Amino acid sequence: MTIIDGKKISDDIKLEIANQVKDIVSKGNRPPHLAAILVGHDGGSETYVAHKIRACEQCGFKSTLLRFEEDVTEQELLQAIKSLNDDDSVDGFIVQLPLPKHINEQNIIEAIDYKKDVDGFHPINVGRMSIGLPCFKSATPAGIMMLLERYNIDTKGKKCVVLGRSNIVGKPVATLLMQKGNPGNATVTVCHSYTPDIKEICLQSDIIIAALGSPEFVKADMVKEGAVIIDVGTTRVKDNSRKSGYKLTGDVDFENVSKKCSYITPVPGGVGPMTIVSLMNNTLLAATKAIYK
Amino acid sequence: MTIIDGKKISDDIKLEIANQVKDIVSKGNRPPHLAAILVGHDGGSETYVAHKIRACEQCGFKSTLLRFEEDVTEQELLQAIKSLNDDDSVDGFIVQLPLPKHINEQNIIEAIDYKKDVDGFHPINVGRMSIGLPCFKSATPAGIMMLLERYNIDTKGKKCVVLGRSNIVGKPVATLLMQKGNPGNATVTVCHSYTPDIKEICLQSDIIIAALGSPEFVKADMVKEGAVIIDVGTTRVKDNSRKSGYKLTGDVDFENVSKKCSYITPVPGGVGPMTIVSLMNNTLLAATKAIYK
Repeated sequence: MTIIDGKKISDDIKLEIANQVKDIVSKGNRPPHLAAILVGHDGGSETYVAHKIRACEQCGFKSTLLRFEEDVTEQELLQAIKSLNDDDSVDGFIVQLPLPKHINEQNIIEAIDYKKDVDGFHPINVGRMSIGLPCFKSATPAGIMMLLERYNIDTKGKKCVVLGRSNIVGKPVATLLMQKGNPGNATVTVCHSYTPDIKEICLQSDIIIAALGSPEFVKADMVKEGAVIIDVGTTRVKDNSRKSGYKLTGDVDFENVSKKCSYITPVPGGVGPMTIVSLMNNTLLAATKAIYK
Repeated sequence: MTIIDGKKISDDIKLEIANQVKDIVSKGNRPPHLAAILVGHDGGSETYVAHKIRACEQCGFKSTLLRFEEDVTEQELLQAIKSLNDDDSVDGFIVQLPLPKHINEQNIIEAIDYKKDVDGFHPINVGRMSIGLPCFKSATPAGIMMLLERYNIDTKGKKCVVLGRSNIVGKPVATLLMQKGNPGNATVTVCHSYTPDIKEICLQSDIIIAALGSPEFVKADMVKEGAVIIDVGTTRVKDNSRKSGYKLTGDVDFENVSKKCSYITPVPGGVGPMTIVSLMNNTLLAATKAIYK
C-alpha cells in the first residue's frame, strides 16, 4: 500500500513553478501576480488564504491580499473585482468563499473576467472544461488529476466512483476522469445522497473519489482489495486533545481502509496541498497567457 | 411495455407553445423569431433544417433561413453571426452542424451571443447547465428529460447508464440526470469506448440512455427486465428496399429489447422529434426573456 504524498508532490510542483518563474524574471519580465479578496475573519478562510499567499512566495509570485469587513456590500465587492479585471499588473485573482449571506456568490463569480478566473469557477471555464477545451480547471479536481498522473495510476477503462456531486469537486472531477486523456478514459459513476446502494457500487470500483464532506463515510467493508482511494473530505471534527480544538477529518476511515487499498491519500497532506498548487499552476498559465491570449 | 411516443409528446408541446405564442401576439407583441444558418447542401442537414422551419410554423414562430455555399469563409460566417447577434428582431439562432472542414466550429459556436444560443452549445450555457443555473439546455438532453417527465418515469435514486460521452448528448444528459430535480437525482454511470464491461453495467441499470451512434449496439441480453430504454442513435443504414436508399437505425435492437423493457423510445419517432421541440422551447424562452434579460 502506498500513501499518496500530496505534500511532497505539491512541493515538487511548486519548485518546478519557481524555476519557471526564475526563467521568466531572468528574461526581464515581472513575476506572475495573484490577488485574493478576503471578506470577514472566518478562521477557515483566513487559514486558506494564508496558505495561498505562502505558496505564492514559494513559487516566486507576487501576491496581493484585499481585505473587506463582513458588512461589505455586493456593490463594493463588484467594484473591487472590476478594478482587478482592469489591472494589467494582476494575472489572476480569487474571491475566497464562502461569502456573507447578503452577497450573491454567483454574481461575484460571474463578475470575474474569465481570463483571470484562476479558481475556474466562472461558467465559461466550467463549460470549456466540460467540452474538453483549454481552460482554467478548478483547483481541487485538477489537483486530483495531477496526483493520479504523478503516481502513474492508470485510469483508462477503470471503474471509478465519485461520491458527491458538488459543483467544485464531484461534477468536475467526474468530467475530467471520463474525458479522453491520461489520466482520463475511466468509466465514471457519480453517487450522492439519493443513491441507495453506495456500498455495492464502491465495492465494484477500482478508484474511489470521496467528496461528500461526511467524516469517515468510506469504511473498509466498502472497499475492494487493491482499490485506489482519493479522499477529498476535510471536515473539522471537535478534538479537545488538540491545541486548535479540532482535527481535520477526511471522508475515509483511513486506519482500516488503508489496510486494503493499493493507494490512499491522507487527510491532511493528500488532496489539500494539491488544491493550492493547482491555483499556483493556473496563475502561471494566466501570466504566460497559455490558455487565453 | 410502453413505447414512448416522442412524436405525440412533441406535438403536444408544440401545441402548448403555439397557444403561448397566440397569447403573446394577442397582447400586441411580435411572435418569437428563430433564424438558422445552413452551409452547403448536405442531405441530413437539409432535412434537419427543413424540420426545424416546419416546427417554427407549427408553433407560430417566425423563421429565417440564411443559406451559404460550401465555400463560405469563416470570416463571412462570423459576420453573419454578428448581424444576427445585433438584430433585435431575432430572438435566437442556430448554425446547423457539421460545418465544412475549413471552418473552425468552435470559433463559430463561441461567436454566437449566449443569450441567443438556443442550441445551448456556447460554453457559458454548457457551464451554467453543469452548475445547475438557468440556461439554454442543449436540445437532445433537454428533450430526453422532457420525455422522462411527461411519462412520469421516476429517476430518483435509480441506476442510470449513459452510453457515449459526446459533448452534445452523453456528457450533458449525464449532468442533468445526476442533478437535483425531477427528473434527476439518479446515480449515473457514463460508459464509452474504453469501458470493458458495458454489458455488465447495462444489466445493473434501471435506465439506459444509448448515445453511441452504433446501430443496434444494445442487445436484449444486455438489458435488465423492466428497464427504461432511451435510444438516441440515428445512424443511416443502407436499405435498398426504401425509396430513400437508407433506414434510420437506433443504437438499440428494438425488436428484441422491447420484449424485456418497461419503456422504450423507437427510432424514428422517439428522441428525434423531442430535439426539435426543445429548440422551439428554447426559442420561446429567449423571446420571453425567461432565462436572460
